[in-house]
This record gives sequence, C-alpha cells and structure tokens, in this order.
Amino acid sequence: MKTIDLNCDMGESFGAWKMGSDEAVLAHVSSINVACGLHAGDWTVMHRTAHAALARGVAVGAHPSLPDLQGFGRRVLHVSPDEVYDLVLYQAGALDAFCRALGGRITHVKAHGALYNMAAKDAALAHAIARAVADFDRGLVLFGLAGSALIRAGRDVGLQVANEVFADRSYQADGSLTPRNRPDSMIEDVKQSLTQVESMLMHGRVRAQDGTEVAIEADTICIHGDQPGAAQFARELRALLSKLGVQVAAVAARSEE
Amino acid sequence: MKTIDLNCDMGESFGAWKMGSDEAVLAHVSSINVACGLHAGDWTVMHRTAHAALARGVAVGAHPSLPDLQGFGRRVLHVSPDEVYDLVLYQAGALDAFCRALGGRITHVKAHGALYNMAAKDAALAHAIARAVADFDRGLVLFGLAGSALIRAGRDVGLQVANEVFADRSYQADGSLTPRNRPDSMIEDVKQSLTQVESMLMHGRVRAQDGTEVAIEADTICIHGDQPGAAQFARELRALLSKLGVQVAAVAARSEE
Amino acid sequence: MKTIDLNCDMGESFGAWKMGSDEAVLAHVSSINVACGLHAGDWTVMHRTAHAALARGVAVGAHPSLPDLQGFGRRVLHVSPDEVYDLVLYQAGALDAFCRALGGRITHVKAHGALYNMAAKDAALAHAIARAVADFDRGLVLFGLAGSALIRAGRDVGLQVANEVFADRSYQADGSLTPRNRPDSMIEDVKQSLTQVESMLMHGRVRAQDGTEVAIEADTICIHGDQPGAAQFARELRALLSKLGVQVAAVAARSEE
Amino acid sequence: MKTIDLNCDMGESFGAWKMGSDEAVLAHVSSINVACGLHAGDWTVMHRTAHAALARGVAVGAHPSLPDLQGFGRRVLHVSPDEVYDLVLYQAGALDAFCRALGGRITHVKAHGALYNMAAKDAALAHAIARAVADFDRGLVLFGLAGSALIRAGRDVGLQVANEVFADRSYQADGSLTPRNRPDSMIEDVKQSLTQVESMLMHGRVRAQDGTEVAIEADTICIHGDQPGAAQFARELRALLSKLGVQVAAVAARSEE
Repeated sequence: MKTIDLNCDMGESFGAWKMGSDEAVLAHVSSINVACGLHAGDWTVMHRTAHAALARGVAVGAHPSLPDLQGFGRRVLHVSPDEVYDLVLYQAGALDAFCRALGGRITHVKAHGALYNMAAKDAALAHAIARAVADFDRGLVLFGLAGSALIRAGRDVGLQVANEVFADRSYQADGSLTPRNRPDSMIEDVKQSLTQVESMLMHGRVRAQDGTEVAIEADTICIHGDQPGAAQFARELRALLSKLGVQVAAVAARSEE
Repeated sequence: MKTIDLNCDMGESFGAWKMGSDEAVLAHVSSINVACGLHAGDWTVMHRTAHAALARGVAVGAHPSLPDLQGFGRRVLHVSPDEVYDLVLYQAGALDAFCRALGGRITHVKAHGALYNMAAKDAALAHAIARAVADFDRGLVLFGLAGSALIRAGRDVGLQVANEVFADRSYQADGSLTPRNRPDSMIEDVKQSLTQVESMLMHGRVRAQDGTEVAIEADTICIHGDQPGAAQFARELRALLSKLGVQVAAVAARSEE
Repeated sequence: MKTIDLNCDMGESFGAWKMGSDEAVLAHVSSINVACGLHAGDWTVMHRTAHAALARGVAVGAHPSLPDLQGFGRRVLHVSPDEVYDLVLYQAGALDAFCRALGGRITHVKAHGALYNMAAKDAALAHAIARAVADFDRGLVLFGLAGSALIRAGRDVGLQVANEVFADRSYQADGSLTPRNRPDSMIEDVKQSLTQVESMLMHGRVRAQDGTEVAIEADTICIHGDQPGAAQFARELRALLSKLGVQVAAVAARSEE
Repeated sequence: MKTIDLNCDMGESFGAWKMGSDEAVLAHVSSINVACGLHAGDWTVMHRTAHAALARGVAVGAHPSLPDLQGFGRRVLHVSPDEVYDLVLYQAGALDAFCRALGGRITHVKAHGALYNMAAKDAALAHAIARAVADFDRGLVLFGLAGSALIRAGRDVGLQVANEVFADRSYQADGSLTPRNRPDSMIEDVKQSLTQVESMLMHGRVRAQDGTEVAIEADTICIHGDQPGAAQFARELRALLSKLGVQVAAVAARSEE
C-alpha cells in the first residue's frame, strides 16, 4: 500500500505574537516542522508545540532557519557552509531537548525559508545541512525539495531523505517551484491543487506551467497552516488520499541504528 | 584520595568580539561551562569551544543564562519557573548537539550570572532548573552555589549535584558570597585565595568576612578565565592541590544509568 | 471648554507578526504611542505607523521599552537609571527620525509596560526618563500614570506632563492600578468603564475597589487597541465625551520654545 | 589650502565586549562614524562615544548597518530599498538623539560593512540610503566609496557628499577596492600606504594592482581603529599631511540650511 507523509510548519508564534492555527491543523498531518527560535518560535512555543504533537503521535522535526527574526527567515543571508552546519546543529539540538524531556525524539529536519531555497540549489550549503543532521543523529530523516541538491546531499551522507512536494505551489519545467514573487506561484483553486497531488502520487509527474510533464518523487506533502482554510484543505486532501488508497504516515527512518 | 573539580566559564566570545583566554586556561581545568548563545557564545563559538575541550578530555557542561546579550546575563529579569525550565532545556540541548556531533555528551549544567544567583535563593526557580536538567538527562550533574537552594533542588529531583566554591570571592556568615557591588567581594591576594581553598577542601570550612568559620561543602572550584593572570593562578592552585594530595577530576555522575 | 486626550499604543506588529487593529482605532484617538523596536515595532512598522497617524493629524509619541522582544517589554529587568536614560534617548530619536522624514515631529513620550510601571514608583528611574526626554527636546510632553513618581519627575525637570488614566482598569485606594494578575484588574463592563471615565473627568475622582473615592487628575485616557471591541468602545467613549461637552485633543505642549 | 577629512569607525564595543582603542585614535581624526546598535554599539556605547567625540570637537556621524550583530554587519542580507530606507532612518535618528542631548548634532552618515559595499554598486539601495539621509536632514554629508553609486545617489538627491578613500586597502583598475578575501587586499606596509595617500591627495590618482593609474577623488580618508598600530599609523599619516600642507578637517556641509 502506498504511503505519504503530510507535513506542516508549526510553532511559528513568538512571545506575544500568534501565528497559524496549529491545533486545528495538527489533527490532519503526520509530521510537523517546529521553528527553533531563529525565525520564530521561542522556547515556550517550542515546548508547547512539541507537547501537542507528541501527545497526538505526530512526528516532530526541527525547522532550522537563518538567524532573522524580523525577516521570518525569508531573506537571503550570505553564510558559509560552516556557519550553516553550526546553526542547524544548534537548532536541532534545542528542539530535541524538549522532545527528550517529553519522552520523545525529533525524527527529521527540514530547513526553513531562505535556507531551504538556498540549499535546494547550492551543493555546499546542502552538504553542510546534511552533515549536521547526520553528525547529530544518523537515524534522522532529511526533508528537502523533491529532486533538489539537498536531497542529493542527504543521500550522499547516508541519510534517509524525504522528497517534499507542494499541493498549492506551481512548478517550472526544471522541477523547481515558481518563485513566490510571480503572480501565478500559488495555486488558489482547491480542485487544481488536489489534481496536482493525485498526479504526483499516482503517476510520479507534475504538469509545469509551460505544460511540460515533469517527473517528480513525492515522499511528503507540505500543508500550509497559516492560511485561512488550511484545516478545510487538509480535510479534502485526506479524503482524496483515502479515495486513492494512499495511507498517511510519517516518513519512517531506516532501521539501520 | 580526595578529589576536586576545577571548572571555568568559557566560550564567552560572540561574533567579532573576543573574550577570555580559553585555550590557556583549558590546560588547567577538569570541567568547562559553555555559554549557549543567550548571554554570549554564538553557535560557531560553541562548536569551537566544545571541540577544544573534548579534544583535551575536559568535561563540557552547559552554562544557560537569562536572555540578555547586552547585559551578559548579569541583570535580573523576572521570569517564571516555567520560562526558566524552557530556557534551560533550550540551551542545554543546543550545546549537547555539538558534543554529540563531536562524539561526546554534555556532562553537567551550571546556570550563569543572574540566573545562578536567583536560583541560589529562590526555591521555585531552582526546582525549575533541576527538573529541566533531570528531564533532559538524569545522568547530568547539576552545579550550584555550595549549600544553596539550587543544590537542594538538584538533590530533591535525584540529580548528582556539585557544590561550587570560589577561590577569589569572599563569603558572608550565612555561607553566601559577598555581593559583587561590595568593595571587598573579590579576593585579590593570591595567597589568601589559596588559603581559602585549602581551608574549604581540608577542613570543610571557610572564614567569613566577619571572622565566623562557616561549614562549606566543596565539589568544584570556579576559576575565572577572563582576568589577567587567570592561567598563572590556575597553575598555583594546581600546585597547592598537588601538595595537599588532592586529585583534580571532573565530578563523576553517579552510574545509575 | 474641558479638553481630554485619547491615546492608544500602536505599531506593535513585528516582521511577519501582526498585532492590533491600528487603522480602525486611529480614527478615534488624538495621540498614539509607537513601539520603537525593543518590545515590538520594527523600523518598517514604525514608518508605516507614523505615516498613518501624521496623515490623520494624530499626535505621534515614542513608546520606549526595556529591551525584551520575547517578553513584549512586560517583564521587569533590573536596569540602572543611566541605562534607562540611554534607552529612552535611543528609542525616542529613532522614532523622531521617521516623523521628521514625514514632515512632522514626535510630540510626547510614554514609557511602555514594565518600564512604565517601574517608573511610576521608582524616583531614580522616573528622573532618568524625564531627563532623557527633556535633554532630547524640552518641548515634548511626558506621559505617566496619573499622580505617579514619573509625573513628579517630569515636573521637576520642567517638562509638560500628561496624567494618564485608564477607562478599563480598576484602581486601588492609593491611586495605583489593580495589578494585572488580580482577577478584578480589568473592567469588562463598558457601562462601568464609561462611568469611571465620567467621574474622573467631571469630578476628579475615581472609586477604588474598596469603595474609597480617590482624587485623580486626568489629562489623557488610554484606549487599548489590541482587544476585540476596541474600536466600538472608542466610539462609545467619544459619544460620552461629546455628551459631557469634553473636547478631544492631543495634550498641547507649552509654548516655551 | 587643501583640506582632507580623516574618519574612523568607532563605538564598536557591545555590552561586556570591548573593541577598538577609540580614545587613542580620537586624538588623530576629524570625523567618526558611530555604530548604532545593529552590528555593534549598544545605547550606552553610543552615548559614551558621542560624548567623547563632541568633547574633542570631532564630527560625529551615524554608521548604519544591516541588522546582524553576530556577523558584525559584514554579511550580505537581501533587503529591499524600502527596508534600507527605514533602517538608515532608524539608526541615524537614534544616534542623533544622543548628540542633541549633548548639545550637538550628527553631521554625516556612512553605511557600514556589507551595506556600504552593496550601496557602492546597487543604484536602488544607494538611492534609498541617500533619500533617507536627505529626508532626515538635508544638511548632512553622505559618505561613500569614492566614485561609487552611493556618491552619485547622494549628488542626485542634492546632498553634500564625501568621497572616501582608503590608505591601507589596494585598488582595482575600475576604482573598486580589492575584495577582502584576496590576499593582497590590505596594504601592510606603512610607507606604501602613505605613498598611496600622497598620490590620491596631490595627484588625484591611485595605482591599481595591475599598475594602471586610476583617477580618484578624495574627500575623506578612512583610518582603521581596531588594529594594533592604528594610533601610530594615524600619527605618521598626520605628519605626512602636515608636510604636504594639507589641512585636516571634517567635511563641511554646504551652508544651504
């Protein structure tokens, strides 16, 4: 039976500021990626988010970012691979401490925002992330844009990887996402999103904006939790997956440890 | 044979700013307490400091602080026990990640600055720290001011504790340190410092400023690494310990795990 | 004709996080206090907020805070009067730059959160704030809790002051606000809030929780903009003021300059 | 009589961390550029630095940076022109407040680190800086790399500009500085530095690394204050200027206000 992971970025509140409807979306996903304080998510939010997820049996992963609270980690910052290695370790370790205190462990790492996009294309940064994750815990799963440099780097260092695809983002002919500053980067129509998911899961293909059919591997689908209708979309997606006979479950790390 | 730990706060540089002469002092101590980014010590400094210590076989502990980079963690900030629990976990986990990547583990936790002083007297904050440490890893040693509320909290939650004493700070009749804003808080005279250490180690007593002899337990002595003459003082202290037949070694965690 | 100022804290968004419904409330007030980056309000938010207020002819003041983004400036931090002097100057100057670029000027300063409460009681901190404001621009108005140490300090240094009262907070017999951690600190009932305002404005008295009638001076009333119903409450308050024949206008600085 | 400004970046300490030997260098320069808290220089340091300079009659300018304390403002961060406009206003205003409280005013603005380099080439960022400075105070002088896009932007908006040249950096044939990551970017030899200065001041030319003679305008020379020998170099430079009959004085703003 086919299996897919549904993941969502969570724990993006900070201090007095609230973001997202974490509790509502938590019911629908198998994995969450928790902000670790550098773009969002102070320690209190991290604790609360890890607790809520572990209590529901949802897999908890670190969502490390460039250090940029004001820019929410979305601005490119020129950092060296060594710096990236260090900041991934820092954030993964910080979140793991909450999971350990709660009787669990982090299961995966997914880079956030600008770091995610930079590592999708820059092999040196991608390897820095992959090495940090592997050096911290070889049993972790590394999430990355499907088919990207980060996925290749994860495989290179022997990590289990998860190719991430997007239901509500449009694709280019080279398999990359349409940049967010383009008007057609987001798929607003729910039906079209679901059709895209079905094509990716059942046929391993996505139709790019120019009409090309692009091969794509899909291990996990990203759900956005900070938009109105997020919980409703998650329900429709799960209904589709159920109809297709696709099971929803967190990406299982290989049992090599 | 009697054993004592010598510890030093390290990794207190940040970005372009350097502090302390870590390499010089590292040769003389058995444990270090590493800043975890909230009062000093960015991730690059943490990595470098943990690497240098583990390479020498020096025990590495977390030195968690209140979040106050500008105040170097020395200003009192009113935080709740829950906040303290969370920020200790965050910082201990972040540092442990570097140790794990380097093939080691943190062995102890010592609160920094204002947090250390607050937890010496406030039982609720002390218990929050002790629970965070125990929930993260029951095999860790909790450092605290000798005889303080933090030591009692550590024992309450079943942690191995280390009573910390100071060679170069004067004491009050109740066993507390003379506050830093008092002119006679620091012992500038090396001979007097060494005499104080000898009394604490061999007789379990320290002479307070009013002449009272106060009972004191000493498991670890704090060496200050950011002062001129730090390395020289460390050498003289080790010569004294050698003469007294006291062995220098990190506080061994109980083998309950 | 009697005149009163209505003020509201604004510009409390930060980066990707939104707070308050500034535009809706702006229509109803004569002064706003703008966060200056230390507890909320990055430079982009400051620019936008100052622009919106000046375009409507609403007076713009600085709302300086202790440096505590995660705690929203609500946590007590032990700072010296010299530090307070410096951080008030820093924040007032930063906001004034946006006003100058927009063709205006800041007109007043109101300390935020924990700093406001500390300065209401601590004469040394109060004088530090008052001196910073006066040294920056003697034509500014200093806001402070009605009858507090901050008001006295402002008068001492020759500043025009504005006694601030609260429509929706209950008072104690000594004229202080009921602390927020007490269940009855907030007045939830709109009628009761309006009655309190009427008593303060028309009779110079407020009924404390124990029934005592306390004398109180009222130059400006604080409206909270981050609560549901804020705009609606503002409308009802203005209707009351209109009925009472009280004009709403920013506190006019003395024309000594 | 020929006149040249000598400027130095100062106030780069932060909290417990010290950097530079500001007092020693202050005796030798006519202008300083003061860090404004985003890459270095907290409010206490800013106050102390402005006080020391104004007391000596040295011109004080703002040294605004990208927000990057850990990277000391040296890392490229992708920010929009609007963001740059806002962060320059914020920092210039904050520093000006200290100068006003001390009875003075800032006289110029010089971007720091990565922002300086980005604005030397990127016309949109350069105009954002120039507009922020002009909108804050049209009487300020805008410093920029000699002949760069920032100098052109300053002239476009009607500001007095100061072409900055470097005594201890080597130049390329296009008039740009040799990038710091090149081994020959710094001129270590004092004689060679002085020769370069003499050529720039007396002949309006600098010899680039490939031997080309490049035309260069020099209104201000940057002295580095954080290096050993900084004060000694400043003395030798002043001796040379004296010999050449070149007067040292801050760049005078046009008297249009």
